[in-house]
Amino acid sequence: MQDDPRVPAEIADKIGYQLRNAQLAVFAGFNEQFAALDLRPAQFSLLAVLDAYPGIVQARAGELLGFQKANFTPFVDALERRKLVVRVRLDGRTNGLLLTPAGRALLRRARRLADAHERTVTAGLSPRDRRLLGELLERITAAARRDAAAAARSA
Amino acid sequence: MQDDPRVPAEIADKIGYQLRNAQLAVFAGFNEQFAALDLRPAQFSLLAVLDAYPGIVQARAGELLGFQKANFTPFVDALERRKLVVRVRLDGRTNGLLLTPAGRALLRRARRLADAHERTVTAGLSPRDRRLLGELLERITAAARRDAAAAARSA
Repeated sequence: MQDDPRVPAEIADKIGYQLRNAQLAVFAGFNEQFAALDLRPAQFSLLAVLDAYPGIVQARAGELLGFQKANFTPFVDALERRKLVVRVRLDGRTNGLLLTPAGRALLRRARRLADAHERTVTAGLSPRDRRLLGELLERITAAARRDAAAAARSA
Repeated sequence: MQDDPRVPAEIADKIGYQLRNAQLAVFAGFNEQFAALDLRPAQFSLLAVLDAYPGIVQARAGELLGFQKANFTPFVDALERRKLVVRVRLDGRTNGLLLTPAGRALLRRARRLADAHERTVTAGLSPRDRRLLGELLERITAAARRDAAAAARSA
């Protein structure tokens, strides 16, 4: 009887599997909507960071968003080529990042899409459930980071 | 004052950001442990599927795990080269997949690691909270899929 095979419980019940499923589903809709702006979620995040911290040191912005250093430079390059972001020299070796007016305008449009998408995806949750979900995810994230750090130390 | 920049709330409060953070943290630990077995999470999932459904049609196994067809063939190839999985001809054009004894042995080891990792990562959650987290994630996943399907239809 394999007429209706299902992902076995030993996989489907794992938190990693559940997180990945949810994340893929949420990002699929997000990417669909953001395609019109030619913007990926991580690019939206950087625009928002630069709006909150004009002139932030480039390396810091990358860390904040969890980028590896080697990946962040080309990531910023692409946004600079599109004239959404500009590098400013803070001192001899340090670059700061600023939004351009075009970057700020795109951020405003992106914000509206992101907020609408958020409402759609979380519409089935009460404010209390939404808060609880955030807290539970935070606890999982913290536990997983502690575990990964411990594993790295003992490796 | 940018001594301690933080991800702005407009990003940090979004479900997509929270899911991605949690997923990256959980998978980091998982990958760390699974590296000893030279196994990635998706490979573990396939071994578990083949254990539950011996001889399952290859295309079905791929669908079940959310693979795109073009990606699944090389994915199976790699496991077949390692003699963990074997293709069997079901009829003229259809392949079925089976675990080999080595595949079954590796699955047993992987299962122990995955269960231990799951316990570590969810240790801070009561059984009730863990159940609730699963339900909330399922509701988000379902809403996001409906939304993505609607967006695709209207595109």
